[in-house]
Amino acid sequence: MASIPHIGIDAMGGDHGPSAVAEGLALAFREMPGRFRITLIGERDRIHDALKRAGADRLGVEIVHASETIDMAEKAVAAARKRSSSIGVMTQLHKDGKLDAIFSAGNTGAVVATALLGLGRLESVTRPALACFFPNPKGGTVVLDVGANAECKPSYLVQFAHMGAVYARYLLGRDNPRVGLLSIGEEDTKGNDLVLESLPLLRRAHHLNFIGNVEGRDLFKGTCDVVVTDGFTGNVVLKTAESVAALLVTRMKAEITGDPLAVLGTFFMKPALRRLRQHLDWEEHGAAPLLGVNGVCFIGHGSSGPRAFRSAIRSVASFVDQRVNEHIREEIEADRDTAA
Amino acid sequence: MASIPHIGIDAMGGDHGPSAVAEGLALAFREMPGRFRITLIGERDRIHDALKRAGADRLGVEIVHASETIDMAEKAVAAARKRSSSIGVMTQLHKDGKLDAIFSAGNTGAVVATALLGLGRLESVTRPALACFFPNPKGGTVVLDVGANAECKPSYLVQFAHMGAVYARYLLGRDNPRVGLLSIGEEDTKGNDLVLESLPLLRRAHHLNFIGNVEGRDLFKGTCDVVVTDGFTGNVVLKTAESVAALLVTRMKAEITGDPLAVLGTFFMKPALRRLRQHLDWEEHGAAPLLGVNGVCFIGHGSSGPRAFRSAIRSVASFVDQRVNEHIREEIEADRDTAA
Repeated sequence: MASIPHIGIDAMGGDHGPSAVAEGLALAFREMPGRFRITLIGERDRIHDALKRAGADRLGVEIVHASETIDMAEKAVAAARKRSSSIGVMTQLHKDGKLDAIFSAGNTGAVVATALLGLGRLESVTRPALACFFPNPKGGTVVLDVGANAECKPSYLVQFAHMGAVYARYLLGRDNPRVGLLSIGEEDTKGNDLVLESLPLLRRAHHLNFIGNVEGRDLFKGTCDVVVTDGFTGNVVLKTAESVAALLVTRMKAEITGDPLAVLGTFFMKPALRRLRQHLDWEEHGAAPLLGVNGVCFIGHGSSGPRAFRSAIRSVASFVDQRVNEHIREEIEADRDTAA
Repeated sequence: MASIPHIGIDAMGGDHGPSAVAEGLALAFREMPGRFRITLIGERDRIHDALKRAGADRLGVEIVHASETIDMAEKAVAAARKRSSSIGVMTQLHKDGKLDAIFSAGNTGAVVATALLGLGRLESVTRPALACFFPNPKGGTVVLDVGANAECKPSYLVQFAHMGAVYARYLLGRDNPRVGLLSIGEEDTKGNDLVLESLPLLRRAHHLNFIGNVEGRDLFKGTCDVVVTDGFTGNVVLKTAESVAALLVTRMKAEITGDPLAVLGTFFMKPALRRLRQHLDWEEHGAAPLLGVNGVCFIGHGSSGPRAFRSAIRSVASFVDQRVNEHIREEIEADRDTAA
């Protein structure tokens, strides 16, 4: 592994194609020069043009051609079999040790399936999980799983807790991360079967600062640093949260348009609204790691713009620098040893 | 049953006690005179004082004394055994036919448990479900279950679909309500075991305009009129949605305070912000019915203010007027007959 992380990016992933990737790269090279190397995977000509347009054609970015692209609507398992897709080629390069990490803002299911199939799991991990950062007034909370495992066993949730705690410690700088179990009430008696069975296992787990059950509202209060849940609930929560925020913004715009006084008002409020946007903006927090795979695989939002790609590069580079996977392995093995 | 619905209200339920109830009553009598009768249940003296303060002491409101109050933190099952609590006394009055419907903004778990125990189920219903209205640009979506059944079987979800469709038809005026199943992707192959097993049952159900899987984001887009899910996921989604909205408002206030220009801006935007608030306000939509109990039981948010009690009275009265329970019984029996 090189001393500077070598990151592969799926240039075809995301709603805005190679141009958003190239613009994001330009931002990242400006803000964090010398901290990473980049290889873009996808249609060579389109990537070349995009880099040129973004003024990023002399930054030493390598291009690896991939002839196929995976659609946002394609089925995950079928897509994972397309070895010549940008996602497939990129994953293989990572597996062969030619990349230290990979990132795609494409079809989440396809990226997850390709990574699981191509990279496999860290030897101590039963099920990798997708970890998502939720912004809140306490500096944010990591939630996992947000979609890799629709059906979970209690033991998976214990591993999610360990992986989430490592993420919070090394990437968010939390000293002794507080871990909560997502439920429908704080009391130990509240929850579905999975929660009721997971709770005692989490309480018994070593090296874990487990605080018990938390509720949906705690995600945005910042009651804890890590929240574990099954990938079905986590995914529903993530999409719900995004859409509430979007609805509020849409309604606000609708109410303001057609009201000249309100339009005047927004003029005075511009700096405040910009600060609000920065604080809540998902693009500032970049990408979600698929924790527990034998490699470094990050996934971004389909609507990722240049800033999201910039943030993703920052997150991926930190993940490699901080050797998060080694810590995950240690953490889960330590719990297994002491529990035995 | 009297021709004017006789509604019992737990005067001790909710964070603001009898005063919010009394003020809400005064609003309701002013806006909908002659459409309902009210009996308040709780501590007689406190209720009397609250009615006086709200100028609602000459509206013919009856009071039934209940010596005990159930705390918001009390365990549901233990609370349901307190027969002299305001919730217990009220439920008994409904069971005895002295009230046509009941409403509480108190401890949700306790109200649900008391109603299930005291009123029982409509004969055709396996599991009652709590139905919540989510506001969105298409006029809103009913989601159930949002908390009565943490663990569900596929057949329950089919009944939830029928009950939700009746609610949408008779209380929201939707002609042929579109019903969706909450999942993590629109494709039939996406979801956890419950979703995968429920989908074919829902497709086969008669009298149901079932549109397939929907996602968290569809709740706020208004893609369908009814969304069915298990009570664990539904409850997490509800609390998440509420807290995202609260976080956005809090952050916005924080950004505006200390920025004199932004404060000036809000002055111009007041009407627009007021319209936004009205549109998204949970208090305007009042209360959530526990569909499928052998009676009419509505539950309100703990933080219900006067407007929420006013809206609740309106919803409860419509529910009784429209004979929703009869329609639920017909709908579920019709499906059973044709399916047999």
